Amino acid sequence: MSGSERQRGSGLIRELIDALRALPGVGPRSAQRMTFHLLERDREGARRLAEALTAAADGVGHCRRCRALAEAELCTVCADPERDPRTLCVVETPADVVAIESAGSYRGRYFVLMGRLSPIDGIGPEEIGIDSLIERLREDGVHELILATNATVEGEATAHYVAEQARAFGVTVSRIAHGVPLGGELEYVDGGTLTHAFAGRTRLG
Amino acid sequence: MSGSERQRGSGLIRELIDALRALPGVGPRSAQRMTFHLLERDREGARRLAEALTAAADGVGHCRRCRALAEAELCTVCADPERDPRTLCVVETPADVVAIESAGSYRGRYFVLMGRLSPIDGIGPEEIGIDSLIERLREDGVHELILATNATVEGEATAHYVAEQARAFGVTVSRIAHGVPLGGELEYVDGGTLTHAFAGRTRLG
Repeated sequence: MSGSERQRGSGLIRELIDALRALPGVGPRSAQRMTFHLLERDREGARRLAEALTAAADGVGHCRRCRALAEAELCTVCADPERDPRTLCVVETPADVVAIESAGSYRGRYFVLMGRLSPIDGIGPEEIGIDSLIERLREDGVHELILATNATVEGEATAHYVAEQARAFGVTVSRIAHGVPLGGELEYVDGGTLTHAFAGRTRLG
Repeated sequence: MSGSERQRGSGLIRELIDALRALPGVGPRSAQRMTFHLLERDREGARRLAEALTAAADGVGHCRRCRALAEAELCTVCADPERDPRTLCVVETPADVVAIESAGSYRGRYFVLMGRLSPIDGIGPEEIGIDSLIERLREDGVHELILATNATVEGEATAHYVAEQARAFGVTVSRIAHGVPLGGELEYVDGGTLTHAFAGRTRLG
């Protein structure tokens, strides 16, 4: 065994450190710290994590209707008869659905683009599933389409494109408001957000 | 299904988010971000991580001689006939062994206390394996015992205790130097470190 192999620890430990780097935000040093923590103090947690990873990788698919992550053919939102089918919220990723559901005020349904338009990366209308979205507009009696793509250049471009496509079907199209976040102090808010906040001002009383 | 269950996502996703929190430094939001990253973009990485976790949890034990993490009965250092058996370095954890091995200059062997003396937590001489350490001093022909416990109150107390025990066997006992780290600027070094750096000064020329 060479000196450098010895320094880098044994095979299984090395493999675990490498595998942990699949996690976003985990660099070589955190991966090493996690590995030693699990092996020295929490093997039960390591086994539980391994099982949860395998179960989720095998058991979680995409909702047939809205493309959010789902364990069955339909996600819990699409399967819930109490959710309003006339309101459809368009988001970029399944994580956005979870964020909106956590807020708890939205009672309509979703459509997940699984990305955003980005011609440079070869992501066009087909990749964001514009056909399935149009099919839903046509068949499901959607009255309002709420565009909740991210407030980035690509998110805005995607929202504009989807809005154009949807108008042909006589659907009301809206965009979520952008402005100063709750608890946000003006002093620390960026210029773009402030511009949006002024442009989107509403009359009081 | 209740509203709160629906908000928190489906069972398998929820379980994976919870299981990821076994990792040190991972809170609820990072765990959620990791989960969506793995499920949306890197299922292969998730499966590889699950396998590495299981393999390491099952296959990594402790070295019979030095108590470092090892895949066989002896760790790679203890199994290496080229390592000097007359020098023994005492550290708190297996991670310390890896740190010292990465530095690459130490050619002796190790003894891992698997902790430090901490009467408040019920960790006494027995828990840090003082008997095994003394046995090694007696049987292995150790000439020098290098104390590399951490530079904390408990680490210092542990070093003092081990030093006292070892002196009875006519072994040279040393403590690693504490001082300004390489590349460290005096302006940003804490007072305790500076005091150590002055007390441990060496004559030049």
